[in-house]
Amino acid sequence: MTSAYQQLSATFLRLSRFGHLSAIAGWDMQTMMPAGGSRARGEALAELSVLQHEILTDKRVGTLIAAAEQESLNDVEQANLFEMRRAWQQASLLPASLVEAKSIAGSRCEHAWRQQRPANDWQGFATNLKEVVALSREEARLRAEASGSSRYDALLDLYEPGMTSARLDSIFGDLKSWLPELLQKVVTKQAGQPLSSPVGPFAVESQRQLGLSLMKLLGFDFNHGRLDISAHPFCGGVPEDVRITTRYNQNEFLSAMMGVIHETGHARYEQNLPQQWAGQPVAQARSVAVHESQSLFMEMQLGRSREFLQHILPQVTAEMGDQPALQSDNFIRLTQRVKPGLIRVDADEVSYPAHVMLRYEIERLLIEGEIDVEDIPALWDEKMQGYLGLDTRGNYRDGCMQDIHWTDGAFGYFPTYTLGAMYAAQLFQSLKRALPQINQQILQGDLQPAFDWMQQNIWQHGSRFSTDQLFQHATGEALNPQWFRQHLEQRYLAD
Amino acid sequence: MTSAYQQLSATFLRLSRFGHLSAIAGWDMQTMMPAGGSRARGEALAELSVLQHEILTDKRVGTLIAAAEQESLNDVEQANLFEMRRAWQQASLLPASLVEAKSIAGSRCEHAWRQQRPANDWQGFATNLKEVVALSREEARLRAEASGSSRYDALLDLYEPGMTSARLDSIFGDLKSWLPELLQKVVTKQAGQPLSSPVGPFAVESQRQLGLSLMKLLGFDFNHGRLDISAHPFCGGVPEDVRITTRYNQNEFLSAMMGVIHETGHARYEQNLPQQWAGQPVAQARSVAVHESQSLFMEMQLGRSREFLQHILPQVTAEMGDQPALQSDNFIRLTQRVKPGLIRVDADEVSYPAHVMLRYEIERLLIEGEIDVEDIPALWDEKMQGYLGLDTRGNYRDGCMQDIHWTDGAFGYFPTYTLGAMYAAQLFQSLKRALPQINQQILQGDLQPAFDWMQQNIWQHGSRFSTDQLFQHATGEALNPQWFRQHLEQRYLAD
Repeated sequence: MTSAYQQLSATFLRLSRFGHLSAIAGWDMQTMMPAGGSRARGEALAELSVLQHEILTDKRVGTLIAAAEQESLNDVEQANLFEMRRAWQQASLLPASLVEAKSIAGSRCEHAWRQQRPANDWQGFATNLKEVVALSREEARLRAEASGSSRYDALLDLYEPGMTSARLDSIFGDLKSWLPELLQKVVTKQAGQPLSSPVGPFAVESQRQLGLSLMKLLGFDFNHGRLDISAHPFCGGVPEDVRITTRYNQNEFLSAMMGVIHETGHARYEQNLPQQWAGQPVAQARSVAVHESQSLFMEMQLGRSREFLQHILPQVTAEMGDQPALQSDNFIRLTQRVKPGLIRVDADEVSYPAHVMLRYEIERLLIEGEIDVEDIPALWDEKMQGYLGLDTRGNYRDGCMQDIHWTDGAFGYFPTYTLGAMYAAQLFQSLKRALPQINQQILQGDLQPAFDWMQQNIWQHGSRFSTDQLFQHATGEALNPQWFRQHLEQRYLAD
Repeated sequence: MTSAYQQLSATFLRLSRFGHLSAIAGWDMQTMMPAGGSRARGEALAELSVLQHEILTDKRVGTLIAAAEQESLNDVEQANLFEMRRAWQQASLLPASLVEAKSIAGSRCEHAWRQQRPANDWQGFATNLKEVVALSREEARLRAEASGSSRYDALLDLYEPGMTSARLDSIFGDLKSWLPELLQKVVTKQAGQPLSSPVGPFAVESQRQLGLSLMKLLGFDFNHGRLDISAHPFCGGVPEDVRITTRYNQNEFLSAMMGVIHETGHARYEQNLPQQWAGQPVAQARSVAVHESQSLFMEMQLGRSREFLQHILPQVTAEMGDQPALQSDNFIRLTQRVKPGLIRVDADEVSYPAHVMLRYEIERLLIEGEIDVEDIPALWDEKMQGYLGLDTRGNYRDGCMQDIHWTDGAFGYFPTYTLGAMYAAQLFQSLKRALPQINQQILQGDLQPAFDWMQQNIWQHGSRFSTDQLFQHATGEALNPQWFRQHLEQRYLAD
């Protein structure tokens, strides 16, 4: 007799196999597919997605979940069942008509945005965005009704289970009280330091070789993954075969280099998820913010540390050629340069949280119905002025039209970037306590102890624990933003 | 009210979308996937394959086909329904237990063969092959019962609908009466001609560029396809996004060059299948032999013609560098060299049919139960001696163990290679009648008229007609092997 839990496991294993094909076909679409293949691919992926949705929302799944909750399960099985219920509820909650309308409106808005953004066409964009917002509000209403939370919190929970806007308000409230001043101090301090820029061109093949050698240093498993090129860098594929991408600019190699380090952080998490539970929800990464903590741990905590930069400098000059701008001190200054700017994805780690806060504040008001789409530009300008001292009036392109997230209705996603940065700082702090010699080890390129610690504390647990439990075990406390502040002060103001 | 035919169309469209994902994930497995991804990919593809089989063999499909046959359909719809019934019958005929047993035995035999072949281990191979043969005989018995044909013919029909062993006996009987003598004459004639081999190395990137420029010349649509590398060259993907592959050898560029031309033939057929019926069985390529006629038309009829070789020589020397062996006459002699050998895939077009005939004769006896696996080596030796004058005794590796086809139970496939060669010769002959200036046009690289003719006569029809009808329309007659004989005599013995 097969238990309800076993039947559910079989169903979720089947779903994960279809998810595998979707992930690889999605990766191919961004990296390999010629443009003319796009329509047929979109239709094939949509067909698979309908199938996955049907399997997950089948009435039998709900019945089996209820039955499995009466069965005797061990801790891991209980955690797995919890994640199964979560996935089933999230998928079952929305009527198919709303899912379809959201998908169509999102595609239309995103597609038009690709032309409207370069044309700075706010009016055109706003028309489509209003439709997306209306549907996202309806989604939020239905999800909030089911969970008893506020509407925005119901969306936030999709990306960061357990996170609430009350908690975010406290975190960002604190951040707001010190970040603008810290930023100003750093900028003033750095203004006095000489800085010279590396002179290209830097051959794409050399940049690729540098990326591969850094991935090797960072423990990327090439038997279970690849590095390729795409217009927008990402980490995709499946844990058994992780596909990361970057993009190259012949005039500037640091972006691609740091981008590869960032994606390698995502990749190591995926490659080290618990294979013994492969195919089950409990084997998946904990959340979007925890995933981001892994990429930012690699890129910001480790990757931009003085010790790491000194260790990799010989590899950098071996591939890029030596030149005055690549002398050790200047190389570190280049990599740690803080410069408030209009564009979030180009932001340094000090100004990045300001970009996130302003988006959080605006999207929350938007979803709760307290502002409308027309109110966005004025709010955007006001907050950019307040947090970063920058004027964006009339520049929609590099202002409120710069991101893809809202076009698809991904409201609630932005906060995970800064939560990830905070988690990364907290992890590095704990790692330093566990391994007092860590900075010396990094300088010598001996990264195994740090990765063993991460494996032990984060990677191997998949979704077995909640984010709070996971960090309680790993660092002795749930999220504590003070480590992020301490990190920024030490790196940017200490000497 | 949706008609039965419309419901079937929707089901087959859905199947083709799943087929799309299977094709792309399969291509990725051969070209991009790191070794460690293999198990998860195999499981994901098997899951999809089970789903496709369930959809196709659903009882409702049989009921709808019977209903649709009573509906009023136009010619194309009728042809489509005919192909739907064929696919449904072929899939429904075998019990799931036999399908699974065949798949397991085939995988085991193929997997072990990868080691056994280099080790020349006939005994080990024979043990696995016996199981594959037993299951293929059972498959053939069931299929033959349903169709009223002989057992071997029932398998043959899977690859070449409508072809029978009676017809093949007549075709190969004729071939056998003149091919060994013709081959001998060509070898004797070429023995008197000087020949020098190009001296490498030839950089992989240069070979790739040459391949791309030939694909362009041959009309490959790069907006709907790509060229990549794999251990065993193939043409995969979907009509909207055709993926061809080759492999490079730094010491020898002609194999990769001719291989790319061959696969481009397959690709152009796929890229020009009727998009207005996309996703329906009638939009698919007619058969394996017709597909091979397209690759061999490009590689053998066009690609090894004196005029084509003269036209492309400047491109060849631009990429490979000039050298005495690449003078025009020697280049043509290199490409048209006839040399009987042990290995089918390395064979020239004159000796190739001998390799196919002997396999056909052996596999037919095997499936009909007239010989057993132990009898293969002696028969192989006898026929290799008779057709090509070569001794293979004790050399199983380069004898009856050289091909992958039998390991997976693909009995009935081999004849399509030679049928394809014959169809290609017949098409070129008709093309010459339609375009009397064709040789001059080829010499000038003006290939559009030839491709327009192929589009008109073959590509655009998909599976709308039977193979015999298709060639009747295109060339005025069903398969006539005399054009292949005439082609070989003119190319290899005329001057």
